[in-house]
Amino acid sequence: MEVEQVLHMNGGNDDMSYAKNSTIQNVILSMTRSVRQRAVMDAYKSISYPKTISMGDLGCSSGPNTMLVASDAIDAVELLHKELNLQEQLPELHILLNDLPGNDFNGLINSLEDFQKSHHCLISVVPGSFYCRLFPSQSLHFIHSSSSLHWLSQVPLELQHGENVKINKGNIYISETSPPCVLDAYAKQFQRDFSMFLKCRAEEIVKGGCMVLTLMSRSNANSSSMENCHQWELLAQALRDMASKGVVEKEKIDSFNAPYYAPSPEEVKRAIETEGSFSINSLKSFEASWDAVKEHNDMVKENECIAVKIRTTAKLMTKCIRACIESMFVSHFGEEIIDELFVRYNSLLEGYFSKNKVKLTNIVVNMKRMYP
Amino acid sequence: MEVEQVLHMNGGNDDMSYAKNSTIQNVILSMTRSVRQRAVMDAYKSISYPKTISMGDLGCSSGPNTMLVASDAIDAVELLHKELNLQEQLPELHILLNDLPGNDFNGLINSLEDFQKSHHCLISVVPGSFYCRLFPSQSLHFIHSSSSLHWLSQVPLELQHGENVKINKGNIYISETSPPCVLDAYAKQFQRDFSMFLKCRAEEIVKGGCMVLTLMSRSNANSSSMENCHQWELLAQALRDMASKGVVEKEKIDSFNAPYYAPSPEEVKRAIETEGSFSINSLKSFEASWDAVKEHNDMVKENECIAVKIRTTAKLMTKCIRACIESMFVSHFGEEIIDELFVRYNSLLEGYFSKNKVKLTNIVVNMKRMYP
Repeated sequence: MEVEQVLHMNGGNDDMSYAKNSTIQNVILSMTRSVRQRAVMDAYKSISYPKTISMGDLGCSSGPNTMLVASDAIDAVELLHKELNLQEQLPELHILLNDLPGNDFNGLINSLEDFQKSHHCLISVVPGSFYCRLFPSQSLHFIHSSSSLHWLSQVPLELQHGENVKINKGNIYISETSPPCVLDAYAKQFQRDFSMFLKCRAEEIVKGGCMVLTLMSRSNANSSSMENCHQWELLAQALRDMASKGVVEKEKIDSFNAPYYAPSPEEVKRAIETEGSFSINSLKSFEASWDAVKEHNDMVKENECIAVKIRTTAKLMTKCIRACIESMFVSHFGEEIIDELFVRYNSLLEGYFSKNKVKLTNIVVNMKRMYP
Repeated sequence: MEVEQVLHMNGGNDDMSYAKNSTIQNVILSMTRSVRQRAVMDAYKSISYPKTISMGDLGCSSGPNTMLVASDAIDAVELLHKELNLQEQLPELHILLNDLPGNDFNGLINSLEDFQKSHHCLISVVPGSFYCRLFPSQSLHFIHSSSSLHWLSQVPLELQHGENVKINKGNIYISETSPPCVLDAYAKQFQRDFSMFLKCRAEEIVKGGCMVLTLMSRSNANSSSMENCHQWELLAQALRDMASKGVVEKEKIDSFNAPYYAPSPEEVKRAIETEGSFSINSLKSFEASWDAVKEHNDMVKENECIAVKIRTTAKLMTKCIRACIESMFVSHFGEEIIDELFVRYNSLLEGYFSKNKVKLTNIVVNMKRMYP
């Protein structure tokens, strides 16, 4: 599986689209707004108010979240400019939107015209993997990525060849039954990918430039606990159930490992320190909850019984996860199993939610480009 | 009609696509290659070999022609670097591809990955009208546009309101029967648009940067002679024939004026001098012919009778024109008339070619950004 070919959020604007279902990602963006805006202001100040500010959003996807990041950044610059009563003209704002080539760029591009009517800025689109160089040297002042860096560049290398392909039998990600070498392979792939990401960005960002990254993390060091991998484990369970009914080939499950990893805060910290180009301003864990999604979307109803609440939450999560992984699952398992898979997933989630309080641990790190 | 909304070359890769039918544009690119490559080299030298060279291609469309421009530019830089035996590393090459939002950007983006495997460069996509600002100030070293600037930003303003909407009755562009005020309106709209284009580019290009523009022109000063407007006049004739059969509303023809203008070399020269930001290195007229298209595509057959030759040429031209204007015509006249329109157009072209030798006059201008 070539991740760069098959990984993309669902395009368009219909009921199954990422644009309509990127609900938890939207909550995460709201929760990190202040970090992001402070970092933009910090970059603007420490580069002594340049005439153009270039800001890259990596893994921008398409839909309302994409433009939210851009407008937050524009607002931050305009606010600071006003606060400091700067005499110079407002700087030119240049927003660079990156995602993998399979992203719905036509959809994204069609939404830009309206955005540019109400926001004075220049916008470029930069297709490609953020694990490679994307932008010219020292051309960006601020770099941002949210809900993207938990996607690896590939299935962990150590699980790609020979006997190891099926060593995580019956699972599709790290699970309680995964052998230790699987945990190790995932951790190593993350270190390789994340350090390559940092290396590329270090070349592209100017001295004093800031970078804010938000990604899925985990609440304790144990990456195989159900708490940390329930979203994948329940999907695997749905697939196993379908395999036992002969709807999915067992082989297909055995040979699938998601190109995803939720690192601990310590792993992120270590990778940044080892790579050495950035100094950490702040690094924080926080919990995003499906209740917050409901609040954000005015879905909270008084006197709603618990069963209905659970049903709504499971539905939200099912649609959100589906919008993210459908392309990858269609490519590996085939289109025909997808509807049934997510019906089963939804019902497994309802069961899980009735017994467990689910929060999604994220990490947000704000760092600055150091130069010797 | 909002030109920015409805004007785009046919997307995709099928029989009617621009990618498959941009044949004359390909010949024009071949004929201007040396001008383009010299200008890239000139820019590289006169900016004292910068570490990054940024090159914008405006009205890039999608398909093989788009990547031809990029690879020519990359070749030119690499060649000069080798010739001069420069000790520094080859500069980073940053290609910026612009077109209107309706362009087939997904198709374009899908082709980039292969291109980048064989050409070491960074690529951004910049959707928007080139009659507005697109890039940050002083960020480009070389700007290029081919077969695009004859498209106006809008139908001439003077023909948009009141009685004037129908003053060019029965025509869809300047024709032998157009009243003088129509010629005047077109010439004025070109001057406004082209000077806005120059003004925007002047802000975006660095000192010493070069710009090469190629666009349709005309062989003599008389813009309404059949020689200069046969492609539109025969389309209008096909439409009028369809109107007389009741297939097209007469009203629709009367109210349509193509947002297109083929300026004389003098008009281009005057606009550049009046705007004042660029000095002209060279300005040349040249003729692109359909015979050259056939040679380029190995379609020349010995002992072919004249009737067959004419048929092939008419077919080439019909498909090429259709790939360019279909979106605009569908928007104004409706989808249902398109197939018949181009069957009729094809047969009118055959008649015209049997009596006239057709060459398409183009102009290529190479200029440099002056700074006071």
